Amino acid sequence: MQFASDNTAGVAPEIMAALAAANAGHVASYGADPLSGAVVEHLREIFEAPQAVVYLVATGTAANALSCAVLTQPWGAIFCHRNAHIEEDECGAPEFYTGGSKLVLVDGPHAKMDAAGLRAAIAHTARAGVHNVQRGMVSLTNATEAGTIYTPAEVAALTAVAREYKLPVHMDGARFANALVSLGCTPAEVTWKAGVDVLSFGGTKNGCMGVEAVVIFDPARAWEFELRRKRGGHLFSKHRFLAAQMAAYLEGDLWLRLARQANAMATRLSQGIAAVPGASLTHPTQANEVFAAFPRAAHRAVHAAGASYYLWPFDQSLDGPGEVPLAARMVTTWDTTEAEIDAFLAHLR
Amino acid sequence: MQFASDNTAGVAPEIMAALAAANAGHVASYGADPLSGAVVEHLREIFEAPQAVVYLVATGTAANALSCAVLTQPWGAIFCHRNAHIEEDECGAPEFYTGGSKLVLVDGPHAKMDAAGLRAAIAHTARAGVHNVQRGMVSLTNATEAGTIYTPAEVAALTAVAREYKLPVHMDGARFANALVSLGCTPAEVTWKAGVDVLSFGGTKNGCMGVEAVVIFDPARAWEFELRRKRGGHLFSKHRFLAAQMAAYLEGDLWLRLARQANAMATRLSQGIAAVPGASLTHPTQANEVFAAFPRAAHRAVHAAGASYYLWPFDQSLDGPGEVPLAARMVTTWDTTEAEIDAFLAHLR
Amino acid sequence: MQFASDNTAGVAPEIMAALAAANAGHVASYGADPLSGAVVEHLREIFEAPQAVVYLVATGTAANALSCAVLTQPWGAIFCHRNAHIEEDECGAPEFYTGGSKLVLVDGPHAKMDAAGLRAAIAHTARAGVHNVQRGMVSLTNATEAGTIYTPAEVAALTAVAREYKLPVHMDGARFANALVSLGCTPAEVTWKAGVDVLSFGGTKNGCMGVEAVVIFDPARAWEFELRRKRGGHLFSKHRFLAAQMAAYLEGDLWLRLARQANAMATRLSQGIAAVPGASLTHPTQANEVFAAFPRAAHRAVHAAGASYYLWPFDQSLDGPGEVPLAARMVTTWDTTEAEIDAFLAHLR
Amino acid sequence: MQFASDNTAGVAPEIMAALAAANAGHVASYGADPLSGAVVEHLREIFEAPQAVVYLVATGTAANALSCAVLTQPWGAIFCHRNAHIEEDECGAPEFYTGGSKLVLVDGPHAKMDAAGLRAAIAHTARAGVHNVQRGMVSLTNATEAGTIYTPAEVAALTAVAREYKLPVHMDGARFANALVSLGCTPAEVTWKAGVDVLSFGGTKNGCMGVEAVVIFDPARAWEFELRRKRGGHLFSKHRFLAAQMAAYLEGDLWLRLARQANAMATRLSQGIAAVPGASLTHPTQANEVFAAFPRAAHRAVHAAGASYYLWPFDQSLDGPGEVPLAARMVTTWDTTEAEIDAFLAHLR
Repeated sequence: MQFASDNTAGVAPEIMAALAAANAGHVASYGADPLSGAVVEHLREIFEAPQAVVYLVATGTAANALSCAVLTQPWGAIFCHRNAHIEEDECGAPEFYTGGSKLVLVDGPHAKMDAAGLRAAIAHTARAGVHNVQRGMVSLTNATEAGTIYTPAEVAALTAVAREYKLPVHMDGARFANALVSLGCTPAEVTWKAGVDVLSFGGTKNGCMGVEAVVIFDPARAWEFELRRKRGGHLFSKHRFLAAQMAAYLEGDLWLRLARQANAMATRLSQGIAAVPGASLTHPTQANEVFAAFPRAAHRAVHAAGASYYLWPFDQSLDGPGEVPLAARMVTTWDTTEAEIDAFLAHLR
Repeated sequence: MQFASDNTAGVAPEIMAALAAANAGHVASYGADPLSGAVVEHLREIFEAPQAVVYLVATGTAANALSCAVLTQPWGAIFCHRNAHIEEDECGAPEFYTGGSKLVLVDGPHAKMDAAGLRAAIAHTARAGVHNVQRGMVSLTNATEAGTIYTPAEVAALTAVAREYKLPVHMDGARFANALVSLGCTPAEVTWKAGVDVLSFGGTKNGCMGVEAVVIFDPARAWEFELRRKRGGHLFSKHRFLAAQMAAYLEGDLWLRLARQANAMATRLSQGIAAVPGASLTHPTQANEVFAAFPRAAHRAVHAAGASYYLWPFDQSLDGPGEVPLAARMVTTWDTTEAEIDAFLAHLR
Repeated sequence: MQFASDNTAGVAPEIMAALAAANAGHVASYGADPLSGAVVEHLREIFEAPQAVVYLVATGTAANALSCAVLTQPWGAIFCHRNAHIEEDECGAPEFYTGGSKLVLVDGPHAKMDAAGLRAAIAHTARAGVHNVQRGMVSLTNATEAGTIYTPAEVAALTAVAREYKLPVHMDGARFANALVSLGCTPAEVTWKAGVDVLSFGGTKNGCMGVEAVVIFDPARAWEFELRRKRGGHLFSKHRFLAAQMAAYLEGDLWLRLARQANAMATRLSQGIAAVPGASLTHPTQANEVFAAFPRAAHRAVHAAGASYYLWPFDQSLDGPGEVPLAARMVTTWDTTEAEIDAFLAHLR
Repeated sequence: MQFASDNTAGVAPEIMAALAAANAGHVASYGADPLSGAVVEHLREIFEAPQAVVYLVATGTAANALSCAVLTQPWGAIFCHRNAHIEEDECGAPEFYTGGSKLVLVDGPHAKMDAAGLRAAIAHTARAGVHNVQRGMVSLTNATEAGTIYTPAEVAALTAVAREYKLPVHMDGARFANALVSLGCTPAEVTWKAGVDVLSFGGTKNGCMGVEAVVIFDPARAWEFELRRKRGGHLFSKHRFLAAQMAAYLEGDLWLRLARQANAMATRLSQGIAAVPGASLTHPTQANEVFAAFPRAAHRAVHAAGASYYLWPFDQSLDGPGEVPLAARMVTTWDTTEAEIDAFLAHLR
């Protein structure tokens, strides 16, 4: 009953095996090894984007912040949702990597922007010429921080607004696999075909040890990215071990299988919770996160049984009248089992 | 005959096994797991520094640049040798992380500074008050970029100069293990007992997959380091896998055994080369790197036999009169064998 | 009928005369001249703050951004009103000078924060430890961007909240003189006695050519400020000419007289407009800015008569039904005359 | 006998008069006034560069650092002489404005680079691809920090090297007028016709109060410069007063007359010193600075008589044997008189 985070889970066995297999002999460092090259090719195929450039880094924050840095100038505004990871969970990494850009926040239910909200934010910015920060870029997250997803049409509606203002678009796909299996579309359909310029393609949260691919659909920005990655300390010397993770993750659609399991378990959990008297979902469950409120007494019961998850927001108290509902976030992962879900639900009821 | 770099080698089997062993169940993320805590304790013991704070990152550039950022202000000069990794091989990462500090370069044979040279550089800086960059910090590398080492006395002589000017001292120990086994002293003796404030304690080059420990002997700087690490995208979510590497690396003095093997092979290689007619060492061999010049014909012979290493500097040509000596760098690693060395030497002669 | 900006006005004759008078012979550069020293002393007296350090710069953006840079780390949030000059009118200068801090915006009517709003913003920030930007500082503007003022009690209420969180407080006083003469209190009462740590004390908008004093009530931050000022290119070589402006500005309370004239003219204008049928004030008039809405036909009439001011927001159109009210900003300055006001009002009616 | 610095002098009377004359009525702020426009046109004429964009700032450090920021990326090396103002006298402003670039220093007598030295420095940089900082730009100073000048042919030789590597070239012309009147060529000949891309055209040191023009011969970089200037706090609100200075400075070739006077006085001083027994020039006198060594006794004599100048380097002592020569820097200015020179020489002998 481990629902605290995607990051408390370990590494899928196929990926761990690939790391061991990659550990033979000497190979070229810094990404010049064959495995690193093969991973780039594989991602190009998956994304139907033969011209794309692909870079591996070890953390999602690095992937996002470096992506922002190649997409906007220091004086550019980054338009994103108020709950975006780049705004709330990266200690200002985008500001650091861009040299001081400003995140302009867009509101919207379930951690999603819509076109009207995005357009209003963009239109409001830079009205006074040189006196303001300029319009820089748009960043959207899929799946979102609320466990919801943008459809290709929704992505396209947002990127169309960005295009009106000639702004490039980044997608934070730390949970891209979870979004994709929920959508049932192709990787291309929800990214470049919908107007996305750069994707942070997550691996770590979905069964890797620590690897994310930055997929840049416009190769003009490649060399700058490489320099920023090195300058940021994110170019791995023994790069084959980033590549080995990603290769195994992609091989035989492992990434999709892992995400399907996590999503299925979230759905099971969500449905189970919703059926509990006094419980309600605070966000729809569309990927591998369940946001729900249920009575404090139920919280105390599952806590006593050893369940692990966060109250959301953090600063609620388990003490007090048992019937009062408290909101929580529960994250399922590639290794969550039906048994875990069912045990949790049993304690909850 | 793989002598191109420490980074072409793979991971020591004990460390790979530890990664697999750490992959059980869910544990707290971002360093709050038990293994991460244990590694900190182990390093404190090894360094006889119970108050030290320790942080793990995945690359040496991250370790160095973050260390510089907590030791100097943006307007502070970083005094280092002209051949320091932070000057020549990090694409300006120290400048990026510090917010624009200036590296002031000190010359000296075999990539080593001496006290007089360091004092002259410091004294020359900031003579005009607010108009100049200020004196910020000293960074020295042990083992150096030329495969040489600083003794505790030499380190102390340099840190004494730094102390005169109230400057903190960083040691880039990407090859710290190689230096230590060559010196035969304790880790404390060549670091904090000799006046070092922050150490980049390398693991990657010496048999790890990708882990470095930043050992900060003055705990006052801990929280700032944590924030800078996160903001730089270097805080691992599945932190247990950094910790597992480092734990295995330290366990039973594996780190020293790996370094001893690399150093012994360098010595064997160095002695063998020095005995070749027309060959000479360009730097003394004191750790796991051999810098030597030998006839172009010999280069061509070992190349034909499949040996891999760099001409040093890069821009020399193998074409031309065979008797002309060309300088080269050959790096031995934890997995270099006597057979490799002997085969190389046989081709060389 | 020039109401476009404080910055369209010229220089008060006393200040221009002082510049000429200061232009005799050679004096020490970079602030080591006697006049520069005297200005510091005079400001210490005016603020009853003998320990304060004072620095002169030529622009308000420099004063504000440098102040922020000495008060917060790069990862610190700057809490300010959504309409603050540092947010809306400095092209990201605070982000640049701080090395990438984040402005966290507080809403509130008439461009003023209240204690509850500020506390909520601070409390919401940095709840997740190292993952978030940290709480850095508070910046408030007096007089505000809406021409309103904070009383000493209101300032104290805000700084009390800041103190709960151990945050330093900056006051953007680009129109400090206008606030002060409206309040009728002493400079100390609305600054350090009310908990302000650093004040941008404006001169340019109120009759100087280009000079602002940064008054730092805690001298511990002096040297860092000096270095940041130099590094930002804001240390004047012929510093006597900054000092001469400021000296004349302070001499015989010229600064207060200039502000009284501007404020009186704003009051006259405000009252006149309010009496016009169909007109209303959009913000109360408390300093030298009048924010009012009045019929489009009246706008067209005063425009035709040569009046200059901005529609506020900019993007309203003068075309269309005459009875529709449009909002505008009208700024009075030290040289605005009653005749100008009365002429404007005559055209308006 | 005021030879300490160009910056101890005041403002030429024509320029002070122009400031007073510009102080009439209200005009548009931030450079939209007619005078500001006229100055741009005048500089385009003077430089025979109708397409050039021109921006005014108040300090030389701002002019230089902003110029660097538009010419190089954060990871670009700035090649300059070891004694360049951007290296020695700006507290790291170029590093700050560029976001952390590295100044790569070129040696050469009399503060001048030659083509071979520059080429060697450029060729040595960035040999290891992404691991190094990249080649960014070249900056040269004319007149130099040693009071020497580059001829158009010398400038062209340096810019030719830059062009080989596709690097843009900046000229720090804080003393451009002094160089020009010494050279006797046109402004265009020693700048864009010789391959210079951006010029810091100094006014402050040569009789202005505080104004420098950045002349950008390639207009593609204009908007970025404007944003960086604003973001740096260097856009003046009452911009007419920067323009008034520059307009008067250019009017009727005042700038050249002021520089001729300063240079003539330097020549007179230089020749006089050279004739003193035991004295020698340490750099040739080619502009308005005299670098010379003369006996300590002579130093003591002129000091006693009230002469003001710097020992160069600073840290020499006037105490000790009188016959020992000490080096000094003496700067003449637009208002230095023959009488001053002759009095100094009389005391010296």
